[in-house]
Amino acid sequence: MAERFTATYRIETPESPQAAAEAMAGEQSASTFVDVPGQTDDLQRRHGATVVDVTELETTTEPTLPGVDADADEYTRATVQIGYPLDNLGVSVPQLRTTVAGNVFEMQPLSGVRLMDIDVPAAYGSACPTPQFGISGTRDLIDVHDRPIVGTIVKPSVGLSPGETASLVETLVEAGVDFIKDDELIADPPYSRFEERVEAVMSVINEHESETGKRVMYAFNVTGDVDEMRRRHDVVRDAGGSCVMVSLNSVGLAGVLALRRHSDLPIHGHRNGWGALSRCPSLGFEYTAYQKLWRLAGVDHLHVNGIRNKFTESDESVVASARAVQRPIPGDDGALPVFSSGQWAGQAHDTYEALGNVDLMYLAGGGIMGHPDGPAGGVDALKQGWEAAMAGVSLAEYATDHAALRRSMEAFGDDE
Amino acid sequence: MAERFTATYRIETPESPQAAAEAMAGEQSASTFVDVPGQTDDLQRRHGATVVDVTELETTTEPTLPGVDADADEYTRATVQIGYPLDNLGVSVPQLRTTVAGNVFEMQPLSGVRLMDIDVPAAYGSACPTPQFGISGTRDLIDVHDRPIVGTIVKPSVGLSPGETASLVETLVEAGVDFIKDDELIADPPYSRFEERVEAVMSVINEHESETGKRVMYAFNVTGDVDEMRRRHDVVRDAGGSCVMVSLNSVGLAGVLALRRHSDLPIHGHRNGWGALSRCPSLGFEYTAYQKLWRLAGVDHLHVNGIRNKFTESDESVVASARAVQRPIPGDDGALPVFSSGQWAGQAHDTYEALGNVDLMYLAGGGIMGHPDGPAGGVDALKQGWEAAMAGVSLAEYATDHAALRRSMEAFGDDE
Repeated sequence: MAERFTATYRIETPESPQAAAEAMAGEQSASTFVDVPGQTDDLQRRHGATVVDVTELETTTEPTLPGVDADADEYTRATVQIGYPLDNLGVSVPQLRTTVAGNVFEMQPLSGVRLMDIDVPAAYGSACPTPQFGISGTRDLIDVHDRPIVGTIVKPSVGLSPGETASLVETLVEAGVDFIKDDELIADPPYSRFEERVEAVMSVINEHESETGKRVMYAFNVTGDVDEMRRRHDVVRDAGGSCVMVSLNSVGLAGVLALRRHSDLPIHGHRNGWGALSRCPSLGFEYTAYQKLWRLAGVDHLHVNGIRNKFTESDESVVASARAVQRPIPGDDGALPVFSSGQWAGQAHDTYEALGNVDLMYLAGGGIMGHPDGPAGGVDALKQGWEAAMAGVSLAEYATDHAALRRSMEAFGDDE
Repeated sequence: MAERFTATYRIETPESPQAAAEAMAGEQSASTFVDVPGQTDDLQRRHGATVVDVTELETTTEPTLPGVDADADEYTRATVQIGYPLDNLGVSVPQLRTTVAGNVFEMQPLSGVRLMDIDVPAAYGSACPTPQFGISGTRDLIDVHDRPIVGTIVKPSVGLSPGETASLVETLVEAGVDFIKDDELIADPPYSRFEERVEAVMSVINEHESETGKRVMYAFNVTGDVDEMRRRHDVVRDAGGSCVMVSLNSVGLAGVLALRRHSDLPIHGHRNGWGALSRCPSLGFEYTAYQKLWRLAGVDHLHVNGIRNKFTESDESVVASARAVQRPIPGDDGALPVFSSGQWAGQAHDTYEALGNVDLMYLAGGGIMGHPDGPAGGVDALKQGWEAAMAGVSLAEYATDHAALRRSMEAFGDDE
């Protein structure tokens, strides 16, 4: 039998999970509703997807999603694994998405269907762009090793002029951050044209580097048309910048692939819009599966939300996502998970315990800007929180002789 | 106040819908969790999104989506309209998506959030590519007017060699179809390289044209990297082909924009993966909103499923989608809705009644290939079904002196 790769789904169905899985395999490969002349046994053998495994889980008495038989006695949940012939698509990230995550979401008889994981074929690892910098390449550019990369986001999200942005960046680089990013809501609006913003911001960052030797990474949001993204990438690179950011769901796989093939810089992947694909637990994608597509396309940094975040995602999901981002797949040694949303030193211990390493970006907005002693205190407090976590010392104990951390706990301690 | 455009959402929340809507407006524009130096009243006035309307709907006692306060007494559903300053983003289709459909899906305090519609700003109509052919341009290329464009999909979806595909295409063009498309599962796999398939298929189509004068439109699936899509487009055009197909969700907005800017041919938009964004009624997108993004990017034909389809979508939703695709937005006169899945003459009356016009593609697989008299009988039956619908004559009455339709009803009548 020709080479196959598998995708794993969690489904719910009024029929037997085995029958439903066979329907999925048929729909996403060689079957049709009617017999057609070319549909031979030989073609089915070569190109038919197969059911590799079915593991039944619990049952429910109501269908979770509409559109299936609503009068069944019960709906069985199951984990099913489908094996796809690699030859059906060859190497193509967009076609991989269509094959494992196309019409399957609308299929009868599924009252639940979520893509949990993709076992990426080795051929993709060698033929796809994959991350150009990843964890170690990003660390080298910032020259931060053996601790998380500490960063922040320019706020307000929209409305600051290039000069106002640069002025905030000056405060932030002086405070000691390693990394700063544009908000996803700003790309090239009339009030802050991309080139002007890059010029204003990089002038601050370059001057800071020449004074201190520290090169802060700024992720400029290049999101746009392909030609725009490539041109903006060049503007960033030529100004001495070291990172470009892109809104993955707004640009799409082909756009990110085009940027990656052109890029000399790490690609910071923002996942805004991800909630639409993930918030219904019985539909869409698990991030474990989804983030693999973007890594094949060449994204270096991937947002994962944060422990005790201000959005709706559970800590369990955040941790599973971050672990998945760090885990190597064919073609890379892992990508860099980016923690953000409501982060301060208070989540350092739990984050460290969940991952067992410090290969991550740790972004704080209020945790830095809202520190009682100002941004420098905020950055110090974050670093001290992580020192405590890595040393296995409690936050409270470490705070006794670390003033910034202590002040931070007084300000944000309720969030812990 | 500067120019604004609105987006409409259906939400569910344990808080007051007004408060939830204000949180949405803040998150998607100028607000942050903490006060920062640049956040002035003036900035808020210029760049803050505003709540334009809140209409309360029913309440429920359980939250539909997880991640919000689960112990509230009730969760109120509402339709809310948010006004965004156009200046926040300028003209950019990817940034439009991030602005109206980004982090909002993961927001506290929303236990339901679905983007229902976007009031596209006029500036987008003049600056975005928009469809190059649309309804009338597509009709001109096929030379079919005053009735639906009747077509089919090559099946089996995967596994046919270029020669086998061409041989099936020969059968289909002789049967009288106007339009044929690749399945979304085939693009450029090792067993049917794109260029070879185009050469084999276009040789049949060109020969058919030179014999009969009829130029059948074939939508070749160019889905892939940007450079691949552009190159494949050229291969199709140079071989005399008249359409390219792309899997929208697998390629993304930037990829489709890049193809559109290069293209001399209509773009046939396949929406596989759409179910992940739409099947949970309290999450994701209504197609009315979603399809506008793709039309701004330049897609001419948009799949809408079909009445009494074999997937999970309701007829009500199919009809709403098709009407939305036909309705003009800034920059176009409407796009062409593509009906498919379990279609035969039996749905012609209901489809015609729902739309009030015949500006659509009507694709049938089994309805053509499975006709008792063969594909020619299938195509004749489809056309006769639509003649009956347009004449206001019942299918049964029209079938009395139209044999192909009669035989079709005998074969598929149970589906009606």
